[in-house]
Amino acid sequence: MRVTAVIMAGGRGERFWPKSRNNCPKQFLSLTSDGETMIQKTVKRLESLVEAEDIFIVTNAAYSELVYDQLPQIPKENVLAEPCARNTAPCIAFAAAVIGKKYDDAVMLVLPSDHLIGYQTMYMKTLKKAVNTALDGDNLVTIGITPTYAETGYGYINFGDEKGDAYEVERFVEKPDLKTAKEYLASGKYLWNSGMFVWKISSFMKNMKKFMPDVHDGAVRIGESFGTESYEETLVREFEAFTSESVDFGIMEKASDIYTIPGSFGWDDVGNWLAVERINETDENRNYIDGDVIAVDSKHITVCGGKRLVAAVGMRDTIIVDTDDVLLVCSKNSTQDVKKVIAELKEKNRNELV
Amino acid sequence: MRVTAVIMAGGRGERFWPKSRNNCPKQFLSLTSDGETMIQKTVKRLESLVEAEDIFIVTNAAYSELVYDQLPQIPKENVLAEPCARNTAPCIAFAAAVIGKKYDDAVMLVLPSDHLIGYQTMYMKTLKKAVNTALDGDNLVTIGITPTYAETGYGYINFGDEKGDAYEVERFVEKPDLKTAKEYLASGKYLWNSGMFVWKISSFMKNMKKFMPDVHDGAVRIGESFGTESYEETLVREFEAFTSESVDFGIMEKASDIYTIPGSFGWDDVGNWLAVERINETDENRNYIDGDVIAVDSKHITVCGGKRLVAAVGMRDTIIVDTDDVLLVCSKNSTQDVKKVIAELKEKNRNELV
Repeated sequence: MRVTAVIMAGGRGERFWPKSRNNCPKQFLSLTSDGETMIQKTVKRLESLVEAEDIFIVTNAAYSELVYDQLPQIPKENVLAEPCARNTAPCIAFAAAVIGKKYDDAVMLVLPSDHLIGYQTMYMKTLKKAVNTALDGDNLVTIGITPTYAETGYGYINFGDEKGDAYEVERFVEKPDLKTAKEYLASGKYLWNSGMFVWKISSFMKNMKKFMPDVHDGAVRIGESFGTESYEETLVREFEAFTSESVDFGIMEKASDIYTIPGSFGWDDVGNWLAVERINETDENRNYIDGDVIAVDSKHITVCGGKRLVAAVGMRDTIIVDTDDVLLVCSKNSTQDVKKVIAELKEKNRNELV
Repeated sequence: MRVTAVIMAGGRGERFWPKSRNNCPKQFLSLTSDGETMIQKTVKRLESLVEAEDIFIVTNAAYSELVYDQLPQIPKENVLAEPCARNTAPCIAFAAAVIGKKYDDAVMLVLPSDHLIGYQTMYMKTLKKAVNTALDGDNLVTIGITPTYAETGYGYINFGDEKGDAYEVERFVEKPDLKTAKEYLASGKYLWNSGMFVWKISSFMKNMKKFMPDVHDGAVRIGESFGTESYEETLVREFEAFTSESVDFGIMEKASDIYTIPGSFGWDDVGNWLAVERINETDENRNYIDGDVIAVDSKHITVCGGKRLVAAVGMRDTIIVDTDDVLLVCSKNSTQDVKKVIAELKEKNRNELV
């Protein structure tokens, strides 16, 4: 059966503000020194597994041009533009219906557009195992990451019995506190939830029909109209009516035949500015410095310079991000509070800075 | 005898980089919320004591236009432009010779252009006492500041016997270490050296003749040429030949009849970025914030914003200064290291940023 990929690229990436903006979110930025954007890397690493014509990008309509520009190898008709944001369940149903019209049935890899993978061959092996598991019945397969420490910022997958390369999923759990995360690790029965899924379109749509029938039916109508004159109109009408729901909550936590393939391939969700020093080389003072920067007696700092000189003097554990219209200076302990700045800007109606 | 003032405004103010630049140093900047520049304040506070026509500004030739603009009340011929920097002894001798040509003899107040005074009436009283002491013989008078803590960043004046309002100066001492500074305070015999001097021109020139005869003679030649066609040529020739020397080392540490008037008038030398929070109001988190700034969970920070939004998140004890072409992020413990950035810029020949 044909293997297709759906890359979800509608996110806002608020935690990478002020580089990530409404008009150019994280997945369209390069956060590594090679200059490749996150979504370019995501597509590139599928090269040996999925044909370009079988890669579909679901994104907000506002970002279609960014996708065309950054991914010229992807056929334009594969860029599926959501008229509004409805979270991942409608997003994936939309793509499944469109691909279903094209190929009847196919395997779908569902992948975030803004994660990094360090070990390509191990990643490919894991995806192939997931494809095989997806083909074996009507399984829904999720890629779990073998944890390396008690991270409290990820959801976890509690798995049970082994079945070939896969493990049965017992349940999905939300981000734990540190004590619970440590218990998860000690138990040897929990994986990080990577947000990567593999299934047959038919398996997924069966579950959509069961657990989110309205979205299923609307998605089918969008799929039927795909390539016809009524597509745009149908898309807007149906999509706007969808309930906003994550695929984790809407499907995965309710369905049967859920399996996980554990993977260890240098996965990084690049969740906030702290990731930049993890995914790039740092200097002898453990600083990550990009741009025109003079650092004096500064250690463990991350500086993403802009057009001006940035001078950092005597700084520790600080993130400095310079853009044309906004400068962020943030303690490494407070990266989660960047969203408070965005909230204040929205409240003050200063949307040009969001 | 007429009371004149000489305001020394040739300094570079490197410790206020990047606001203070080669083309607009600290004395020409406003560091307070009222918008007045340091030199404007310096002149304004002399209003009740010295006529505008008797206020002389000695500055680098490059800053003459800044002085004309900021101090239109000062006659242009009172703006004495040094062709090069030769420290304070030649600077004051130059002014003394020019004023000496105009008035034969007069009292000279010699004042830095970039200090702040909080208590105006007490300042005036101190200056008047200094004028009276200067008129009583050939005394050289320095204004000492009664210390409020063991500052290690100032020079100290060790005083002896009382003589009217004044005290005889035993010696001048360089910036002490903390232990020594504490001993100075405990002794009750040391004042901070404010760099403000009062004397008759005749008294000063007598001492110049004795201790720095070459500079004395050159200054006299400049004074004689003042107002004639040969002035510019004489000034450049003589001034460039002067030894670079401070008045403290060249004269004050060697001369007799040195007196100090102790003052307590809210003096602040505004020595570096730490001063900004001292001389301005701070908010409930002890932050000083100027410009378009969003501060989230930040305490004891100083932000001098520029044209862009500055977002400070989770920051402590940090100075952020945003300008069009340079951004400074500096720990409050490292303000003295700002000069290392300037040194690096000079070394790299990036003088446009200095």
